[in-house]
Amino acid sequence: MADLEFIRKLVIQAQTKIVFLVMDGLGGLPMQEGGPTELEAARRPNLDALASRSVCGCSVPIAAGITPGSGPGHLAMFGYDPCRYIIGRGVLEALGIDFDLQPQDVAGRGNFCSVDAAGNITDRRAGRIPTEMCVQLSARLNEQVRLPGVQLFVRPVKEHRFVLVLRGERLAGDLSESDPQQLGVPPLAIHPLDETRDRAASQRTADLVNAFAGQARQVLATHHPANMVLLRGLDKRPALPSMQEVFGLRPAAIAVYPMYRGLAKLVGMTALPSGTKLADEFDTLERAWPEHDFFYLHFKYTDSRGEDGDFQAKVAMIEEFDGYIPRVLDLKPDVVVVTGDHSTPAALLSHSWHPVPTLLYSRCCRSDDVARFTERACVHGGLGIFPATDLMPLALANAQRLTKFGA
Amino acid sequence: MADLEFIRKLVIQAQTKIVFLVMDGLGGLPMQEGGPTELEAARRPNLDALASRSVCGCSVPIAAGITPGSGPGHLAMFGYDPCRYIIGRGVLEALGIDFDLQPQDVAGRGNFCSVDAAGNITDRRAGRIPTEMCVQLSARLNEQVRLPGVQLFVRPVKEHRFVLVLRGERLAGDLSESDPQQLGVPPLAIHPLDETRDRAASQRTADLVNAFAGQARQVLATHHPANMVLLRGLDKRPALPSMQEVFGLRPAAIAVYPMYRGLAKLVGMTALPSGTKLADEFDTLERAWPEHDFFYLHFKYTDSRGEDGDFQAKVAMIEEFDGYIPRVLDLKPDVVVVTGDHSTPAALLSHSWHPVPTLLYSRCCRSDDVARFTERACVHGGLGIFPATDLMPLALANAQRLTKFGA
Repeated sequence: MADLEFIRKLVIQAQTKIVFLVMDGLGGLPMQEGGPTELEAARRPNLDALASRSVCGCSVPIAAGITPGSGPGHLAMFGYDPCRYIIGRGVLEALGIDFDLQPQDVAGRGNFCSVDAAGNITDRRAGRIPTEMCVQLSARLNEQVRLPGVQLFVRPVKEHRFVLVLRGERLAGDLSESDPQQLGVPPLAIHPLDETRDRAASQRTADLVNAFAGQARQVLATHHPANMVLLRGLDKRPALPSMQEVFGLRPAAIAVYPMYRGLAKLVGMTALPSGTKLADEFDTLERAWPEHDFFYLHFKYTDSRGEDGDFQAKVAMIEEFDGYIPRVLDLKPDVVVVTGDHSTPAALLSHSWHPVPTLLYSRCCRSDDVARFTERACVHGGLGIFPATDLMPLALANAQRLTKFGA
Repeated sequence: MADLEFIRKLVIQAQTKIVFLVMDGLGGLPMQEGGPTELEAARRPNLDALASRSVCGCSVPIAAGITPGSGPGHLAMFGYDPCRYIIGRGVLEALGIDFDLQPQDVAGRGNFCSVDAAGNITDRRAGRIPTEMCVQLSARLNEQVRLPGVQLFVRPVKEHRFVLVLRGERLAGDLSESDPQQLGVPPLAIHPLDETRDRAASQRTADLVNAFAGQARQVLATHHPANMVLLRGLDKRPALPSMQEVFGLRPAAIAVYPMYRGLAKLVGMTALPSGTKLADEFDTLERAWPEHDFFYLHFKYTDSRGEDGDFQAKVAMIEEFDGYIPRVLDLKPDVVVVTGDHSTPAALLSHSWHPVPTLLYSRCCRSDDVARFTERACVHGGLGIFPATDLMPLALANAQRLTKFGA
């Protein structure tokens, strides 16, 4: 992969427009040996037609055998080295509830849990309390816990999950977690991890988080089963150079789920109002067309149905998406990429390491022999099996947005 | 390639089993343009059947154009960067004679050579003395040479070749060689090479080795043509993290030749008693099946026949190996890899740089269109042309032994 600094030096301005159509968890597997994958089973006349005009390949989000979380999967697709820019779990959760995280904030993922009179954990998820109770108790913590010198935000997520954000001067991330991952022992004290640079700030932040946990236990004392908290993934958001700076683009994100909107904002995209349905997203694309030159359009439900293990439903999602391709082409984009941030085979009910079928269309893409947009066919494409971080440089090149390297 | 530390953090425990079937020097070439390679010429019904259920590719052991020795070829296959972990020639020779090399030992490869009265070399291999003489003279050196503060082992290899091992405190490797690679000059004094860290230990070790050479000349004075020694490849064995630590496996090696057993032990494998024939090796695999979860089974003779330049004999070796594939599948392994540590085309009579045909089978491997296990066919596989170091992460992923990277 060419690094961002290398690319940045080659970027030139152009009037061209790039669209990334991202079906989350696109890649799949057969349900039984010899069967079709979800993509192979789907009717996909528009994707196939576009594939036959495109250069195709299979993208590797992180490295061979590595299953990406949504954070690293997206960063790679946007051209950022996912092993260099690490997004903590707390940050991801905060993005997921549309919390407006500032660069200096430290965010952590919290669980309500149950402890006995001795303070030993009896249930790490507090019996998965209903979300309404999570909302109530989060509000209570938000009001009643006070920490010296920092602002504190406790925000509910779902069931037993909440987000804790500390805001103030000289906070540092990269802290250990308090969840001992077992029962019958008390929560662990949080401490700075070795990698941290500013030791004093890390220690101060750890102390504050430990103080939060101590006060939370008092506030929650009478609220069994949710009478204590566990905290993990405490970190700041990574300092990412923006797509404007690096790629010279005016980028926009079209995504329904807050987490993906948040990820896009991390790299400097404008998150456009995107409605709730796929049709809304394509409406947004058409409406915002004049205002931006890079569009990331995210479709969540290919991944969701994969995680459900519902092969047929994932097939239906792909078919639904296929139907919108002509609307994109009608906008006359200079570059269209269709890909996913990772694979989510229904057969595995989870994200997986398998490369992601990908096409890139432009007038100068040098199309290959691939005429079917499937895992099996894309292996033979002109992009080969390639790192996902190559997609942005390729898209920019096809959009005439990169100049020559060297004389 | 994801590095070992990165992989280690993602490893999770599972009950799954992985088998690496390694035909040494597997890849080949046509004997004349347009002809078949050894694999193409072989009847390989079982390999082809497995390939069609597998994901295939061509592995690159080191880098494009680089011909690997057995050491780096194996390290890469086992997931270790072969350019970072260097195995000295002395260490490799020691492993090859099944010498129980300790982490602090310095091992060197020795040659008996001939010198004239002035001490100038007249034959760098002492006329390739018979092995029996090598055995006798090695024993004599082993008994009669004494060095202060260190134990010394001289062990015969074959013809003019022996192994020297020094054992003691504060020895250091990475020394120069005494073989000037020409006649009419005396052996060179050995000195530390620049890269060495502990300069005092290196100098002491060099002094000891030079003292060994001096005494050896006296002991051998009346044994012309073998009246002197040349030493090279003096080094310690590399400090490799074990496969248990890094990959969380209980790994076992099934190999007939000591060198391959030794290489496997370097990465923490248990070298199982493996008999002398291929049938013995598969018997061992079946017998040891419950005790381990990673098996490396090594077949030497594809390489040997390639180095002989005997195309038909290499074809026969491949066909013999093919016959054992069903016995492996009967064990119901979760992951089967068939590969080689490098190519050894009979046409070249030596190791070569060519990528190695490779298949990986698992229930979730996402099989490709490849239905023939040949060099030509594997190029089109779903693994593409890939670094051999990717094999271990891929095998672990397919064995459900790696968790997700990032949230």
